[in-house]
Amino acid sequence: MTKAPTTALCRYTDTQIFYRDRDLVGDLMAGGSGDFVALMMAHILGREVSPREVRVMNAILITMMEHGLTPSAIATRSVYMSAPENLQGAVAAGLLAVGSQFVGTIENNARLLARMVAAPEAARADLAAEIVAEYRAAGRRMPGFGHHLHRPDDPRALKLLEIGAEEGLEGGHIAALRLLGDAVDAAAGRHITINATGATAALMGDMGIPVELMRGFAVISRAAGLVAHIAEERARPSGRFIWELVDKAIPFDADGPSGGRDGG
Amino acid sequence: MTKAPTTALCRYTDTQIFYRDRDLVGDLMAGGSGDFVALMMAHILGREVSPREVRVMNAILITMMEHGLTPSAIATRSVYMSAPENLQGAVAAGLLAVGSQFVGTIENNARLLARMVAAPEAARADLAAEIVAEYRAAGRRMPGFGHHLHRPDDPRALKLLEIGAEEGLEGGHIAALRLLGDAVDAAAGRHITINATGATAALMGDMGIPVELMRGFAVISRAAGLVAHIAEERARPSGRFIWELVDKAIPFDADGPSGGRDGG
Amino acid sequence: MTKAPTTALCRYTDTQIFYRDRDLVGDLMAGGSGDFVALMMAHILGREVSPREVRVMNAILITMMEHGLTPSAIATRSVYMSAPENLQGAVAAGLLAVGSQFVGTIENNARLLARMVAAPEAARADLAAEIVAEYRAAGRRMPGFGHHLHRPDDPRALKLLEIGAEEGLEGGHIAALRLLGDAVDAAAGRHITINATGATAALMGDMGIPVELMRGFAVISRAAGLVAHIAEERARPSGRFIWELVDKAIPFDADGPSGGRDGG
Amino acid sequence: MTKAPTTALCRYTDTQIFYRDRDLVGDLMAGGSGDFVALMMAHILGREVSPREVRVMNAILITMMEHGLTPSAIATRSVYMSAPENLQGAVAAGLLAVGSQFVGTIENNARLLARMVAAPEAARADLAAEIVAEYRAAGRRMPGFGHHLHRPDDPRALKLLEIGAEEGLEGGHIAALRLLGDAVDAAAGRHITINATGATAALMGDMGIPVELMRGFAVISRAAGLVAHIAEERARPSGRFIWELVDKAIPFDADGPSGGRDGG
Repeated sequence: MTKAPTTALCRYTDTQIFYRDRDLVGDLMAGGSGDFVALMMAHILGREVSPREVRVMNAILITMMEHGLTPSAIATRSVYMSAPENLQGAVAAGLLAVGSQFVGTIENNARLLARMVAAPEAARADLAAEIVAEYRAAGRRMPGFGHHLHRPDDPRALKLLEIGAEEGLEGGHIAALRLLGDAVDAAAGRHITINATGATAALMGDMGIPVELMRGFAVISRAAGLVAHIAEERARPSGRFIWELVDKAIPFDADGPSGGRDGG
Repeated sequence: MTKAPTTALCRYTDTQIFYRDRDLVGDLMAGGSGDFVALMMAHILGREVSPREVRVMNAILITMMEHGLTPSAIATRSVYMSAPENLQGAVAAGLLAVGSQFVGTIENNARLLARMVAAPEAARADLAAEIVAEYRAAGRRMPGFGHHLHRPDDPRALKLLEIGAEEGLEGGHIAALRLLGDAVDAAAGRHITINATGATAALMGDMGIPVELMRGFAVISRAAGLVAHIAEERARPSGRFIWELVDKAIPFDADGPSGGRDGG
Repeated sequence: MTKAPTTALCRYTDTQIFYRDRDLVGDLMAGGSGDFVALMMAHILGREVSPREVRVMNAILITMMEHGLTPSAIATRSVYMSAPENLQGAVAAGLLAVGSQFVGTIENNARLLARMVAAPEAARADLAAEIVAEYRAAGRRMPGFGHHLHRPDDPRALKLLEIGAEEGLEGGHIAALRLLGDAVDAAAGRHITINATGATAALMGDMGIPVELMRGFAVISRAAGLVAHIAEERARPSGRFIWELVDKAIPFDADGPSGGRDGG
Repeated sequence: MTKAPTTALCRYTDTQIFYRDRDLVGDLMAGGSGDFVALMMAHILGREVSPREVRVMNAILITMMEHGLTPSAIATRSVYMSAPENLQGAVAAGLLAVGSQFVGTIENNARLLARMVAAPEAARADLAAEIVAEYRAAGRRMPGFGHHLHRPDDPRALKLLEIGAEEGLEGGHIAALRLLGDAVDAAAGRHITINATGATAALMGDMGIPVELMRGFAVISRAAGLVAHIAEERARPSGRFIWELVDKAIPFDADGPSGGRDGG
């Protein structure tokens, strides 16, 4: 039988509750110091976090919270309309959209930055050019770069990197991202913006957050954004409207591919 | 400490697997007799099921499988577009829409039928009239009746009840539904259709399926329907189209209620 | 066709992003003022929130974040072990446990408090006694009272109410909860603690949060707690251990009820 | 704007409902012919399916339906205990466990079989040996082979392949799997079983089901299995027992890795 693991997250006595080694009531909730974001970071990461890191994380969470009527929000609103007794199900449906096509690009960018940071500093500019050449040769988009609307620059990315610089984050990921940006611009022959995804990857990388956990912070932030969509859905219902809109806009056509066959 | 429960669903030896008391390989999968719907019913209900019940259940599952571009399918397609690496998440998102507003009406109707079946047979017609009067007084729609499109009759409901009659289902729920239908028509002064939801409730009631489990069969059937939507999404992607369509059709308006305040 | 609704949550220009009427980059993320909890509250509730309310909400979120190896965390760890490529699915699974049996009692308590606050102040003590009598007559537990471990008092509840008092929350829900507590004690003939659920309901009620949205804040907070469980699962895997533990502890027994039959 | 896609799944008139090009009531539900599994296959795959294929799919669905108290069932039972009003959420939680670690190996095996089938028939035995050597060199387990309990052979796999042979499935995937099995045995110096996962991949491959949709059929089958767990949970509740069991078996230990740090 597999050996029993242990947990460091929580323990109880009759009169006290501890989160890791800290007393919930006497310490964490006490006198004005209780800050959910700071605590949540320390709880997830298992280490003390500095006020500078907390400020950076607040900026990241704020940036990821709301993106309007995206597929994630549409899923949440559609489920909420069908099962309003079950708010958590509507949020869960929207969170399931936090996958490879949007938030996953944070991880893909973060892996590139980790590869650069692992190289000797003097070799990083060349490595950046090499990575960009790889992507261009493969016809793939560079994760963390470009935006269909915000040109020449994604203002969120500039601000996130500015905050990272102000707070003195070290670790080399921000610098690596800038080198990558130079290489992207050089290869394209024009300026292509670092986007919010790229900036987030660099800031999280410099805070030492493992790539596999980065998506977790997006999930927390999106949960808040999706609750705002549910609040609005209660006052300005959209679920039935979306249903009718989609049903009318996508006509029936018996022919055409079904997806049920390789190549079909 | 809570006493350990037991399970009757599955056990293993080195050479055999049993579902309940039946040998999976030697019995259930053997020689042509293996029928998933029959087995699934027996497995869930914990009893033998007759071929007549299996036929009725097939008709129910077929009826619930597909309803076009509903909120459930929209949620699945939106999530699949965002996380295609994760088919099960897209199905789960759509299943979360199997809630009170659509499938839940099966349960509401089934509870009315159970109330009628619990009454002496001679008193049921009066009880039906009483129930209809209650709903009308409260201004509530009768669950299991009416359809915005299929008038004067929902053809699925007629067929389901016909199959139930052919297969000789007993238990009184179908008869109770017909009495309720008479009372609905009498009160409205015109014919109002029994819908597929109402017919399903009656058939499941006559098979002795507990009200709290009825939704489970809808979930199984919808899972199949949602996989068909995913197959089609692979060949005729709609996720991005739906996103753009919704984003354009719902304008920004800073004023108006937010839902974040009682009465607001 | 249903009339198009509107949204107040988000709009874009080429150079700016707005959350409601505020500029994301120039205002929300700017110079040190960016606080995720304050912004998320304002975004969900659609109104300005005071620093006092923000402090109260921080205390609530911290209290709800972590409860150890609960069914919610077990679901998350079991799903994460099966699909680690899909962090959001593991969080979604755990969030689906934010239902009637635990967090739902916040809402049940909040409805009682709303009923008391709707009564004239002079009548509230009598109403409290009446409500307690109703529950006792029905043999139902009073939502928001009692704890299996924390006796005589749940320290989190005391602290939450203390913070609510310090921050001067008004609206009468905290006072109503205390009246209800007096009536509970009088009827039981001994002191029964207000629990964290009850205190949370009172604080949220005094902030004017609609009962139907209260669960949303639990979902956000639990999302953070579940990400911490996933982080720990990466370092101290428990999924396979839990599986073996459960499989061994729940023996096969072909007899006994199946749940597939009314009364069976 | 993205061009509108079309759908071939469903259309309505006032008096008829069509699934693809077939009349639901007059054709699919009619006179005894209505078979959910056959219809669901045709609906998903977008083509006629033969009775032989339907028999094979029934055997596959039956095999995947139930595996006892696995992580998937534990998630479903834990969520059901917390939110019994919300059956679909409990099923959704369990389905989220249909990921890379269990069902995903079907896809990995199917990709190997597709690679073999793409090669000239005369070259396949050598390719099988080459694939096995690749996996051994990389220290990776061959997907579709081996079972911790069922030795020397997984009886489900033997039966599935027997049914596939009886029904005359063609396409070369079953033959390719047997070649791969020979190469696995030769490299290991002993017999290693083809498991149910491997056999399922071969049968689905021979039915022309795209690799990316294979998981969909597992989801449908598991949905039924999870509803059976919920039915049993109603009669023999395990959720609280599992909670107490896990909480007691995993001790608190403040030290040790947290997972919140690279390499930590």
